[in-house]
Amino acid sequence: MLTANELNFSGGPGALPKSVLTMVQQAIDSVPEVGLSILGISHRSRWFADVLAETEQNIRDLLSLPDSHAVLFLQGGATLQFSMIPMLLLSGSNKTAEYIETGYWSHKARVEAEKEGKVTLLWDGMKEGLDHLPHNADLAFSADAAYLHYVSNETVEGVQFHEVMGRDDVLRVCDMSSDFLSRPIDVNRFDIIYAHAQKNIGPAGVTVVIIRKSLLTRSQDHFPAMLDYRNHLKAQSNYNTPPVFSIYVVLLISRWLKNDIGGLANMAKINAEKAAALYRVIDESNGFYRGFAAVENRSLMNVVFNLATPALEADFLNYAASKGVSGLAGHRSLGGIRASIYNGMTLEAVQYLCQLMAEFSAKTSA
Amino acid sequence: MLTANELNFSGGPGALPKSVLTMVQQAIDSVPEVGLSILGISHRSRWFADVLAETEQNIRDLLSLPDSHAVLFLQGGATLQFSMIPMLLLSGSNKTAEYIETGYWSHKARVEAEKEGKVTLLWDGMKEGLDHLPHNADLAFSADAAYLHYVSNETVEGVQFHEVMGRDDVLRVCDMSSDFLSRPIDVNRFDIIYAHAQKNIGPAGVTVVIIRKSLLTRSQDHFPAMLDYRNHLKAQSNYNTPPVFSIYVVLLISRWLKNDIGGLANMAKINAEKAAALYRVIDESNGFYRGFAAVENRSLMNVVFNLATPALEADFLNYAASKGVSGLAGHRSLGGIRASIYNGMTLEAVQYLCQLMAEFSAKTSA
Repeated sequence: MLTANELNFSGGPGALPKSVLTMVQQAIDSVPEVGLSILGISHRSRWFADVLAETEQNIRDLLSLPDSHAVLFLQGGATLQFSMIPMLLLSGSNKTAEYIETGYWSHKARVEAEKEGKVTLLWDGMKEGLDHLPHNADLAFSADAAYLHYVSNETVEGVQFHEVMGRDDVLRVCDMSSDFLSRPIDVNRFDIIYAHAQKNIGPAGVTVVIIRKSLLTRSQDHFPAMLDYRNHLKAQSNYNTPPVFSIYVVLLISRWLKNDIGGLANMAKINAEKAAALYRVIDESNGFYRGFAAVENRSLMNVVFNLATPALEADFLNYAASKGVSGLAGHRSLGGIRASIYNGMTLEAVQYLCQLMAEFSAKTSA
Repeated sequence: MLTANELNFSGGPGALPKSVLTMVQQAIDSVPEVGLSILGISHRSRWFADVLAETEQNIRDLLSLPDSHAVLFLQGGATLQFSMIPMLLLSGSNKTAEYIETGYWSHKARVEAEKEGKVTLLWDGMKEGLDHLPHNADLAFSADAAYLHYVSNETVEGVQFHEVMGRDDVLRVCDMSSDFLSRPIDVNRFDIIYAHAQKNIGPAGVTVVIIRKSLLTRSQDHFPAMLDYRNHLKAQSNYNTPPVFSIYVVLLISRWLKNDIGGLANMAKINAEKAAALYRVIDESNGFYRGFAAVENRSLMNVVFNLATPALEADFLNYAASKGVSGLAGHRSLGGIRASIYNGMTLEAVQYLCQLMAEFSAKTSA
């Protein structure tokens, strides 16, 4: 019997694994190693220093992270990174930053960068259509760019890059908020990767930033202290009081990925199976369900689709709710249906949704 | 029988009320009104909009907040406010901001302001001594200042202002991180009040900002979007994904303050009783315990004291630990002993500590 939490297909904050929720619940009363509530433990305690160190190490292990890159746990979400990154890499430079705009989130990132310096739009998804993505060959990358920025997975539209974009001789920055730790990546090819936690790796309130340390020699003296990456690096993400609770949950998720799942190759395999099952139902529905994304750009994290009419979509959501399934309404900017199947979502729950979709189309078409 | 959580005198994150911890534990599995884990509920849900609205309303009720002031829930801690406030009120102005520097935290705030404009130090606690505070009559306030900034309670040193500082014709900004909602205040006399949650009102990860709305007409167009107060005001603290969990705990605390405690006048009375009990033990110990703060500046939140030698202090901490009491070690910058007795700490637990202190001095002096 699947629980309500297991059948929560919310776009984010997303569902977390059952075993992790049980440990979090225990920690609200008492963290086993400490004997105190997680909500009352000092961030300057030895225990929390160990939490930070182990979480970082687990992420390093999962991604085979080279020593050249630092791992930071910051506040402010991806949205603050939209600004901090151009402040570091673009402000005061006469170079141009290149942005690939493929949806809601990459648009927001570009607007922030324009406050800090010159920006070129290599791909304008608003014009080209948000249902598909460019290939490298479609884009005129410059060797002189300050950096390239793109979003690996657009949560709202359900499109995902399945190749690394850009040139290896230009700084590469990627917002992986909605597919971080969902599959192996070659971190060496990236200079900054950032991801808020609330999709695949924990609750809202903490953002993971992986940054090539050599970039941090750039002056940030005049930045607000919280926006100076060097302060966070030096203090090992304990510069001011960090979001202790959220980081602890990220630790539990990183342990689960290593020990229960067995690493990112296994996680990617499970995620691919989940996505394949849902897209199969869509493709075999004779147009009853209509996938939003072009087939080659389909996201393995957010399966976005429509039914013939908004009224039918509302019926479908009601039917799903009557079967215990929640979180399927599309993003407010796009409407339709979105099944978010982040790491924490099980194959069993996805199969339950597939069954339900088949039932609904049979019932409605009959 | 007092539990380990009830006997946690940590300087912050601080202990939360037992009844609130029980509700938080429930919410990790399932928020009663929703039927889902608090960690998997969308910040765009109707339920979370209601959480934000009720939390704000409770704070308005507790403080009798006038309509002139907005209540915001932000990320980045007090440390980000150290920068956002001078960016808003000082940057690009030819006026001077006035800072009263009375300890560790007000020092940090002043350093950030100096990045944005001219700052005058009205009181230099490093020179004057951190064990006492100035009176209004001691300070040369200017009618032309951009604003006055001070910290109402210095957590590290255990000194607290028991009067409102500054002139009523100059903008007044106060960091109340460690005594917010611990006593009634006349909000009308303040233009910005800010407080991170992890002392009196919740877990780390969220900061409450009360700001006079008329200040927000100032241009912030060139600021990073996350540092533009107008974005947060317009979105009712739901601009990007907020720290849902931390805000939910603040809601539970605000309900507890209203319904269980009966408002801030009652809370202040309880807090005064707790502090009086501890200071009485110190004062009646014939110098065995030595209060750090001047008597008239004693904090009702952080009772900081020393014993004759660091070795004796270590013995005391061990003795306390053997009796189930934790969190008493002083801040790393000052050493000694600190008993933090925020709202969540009960009078009963304080009396237990008083008893233990009396036992230890009797045992040691014998």
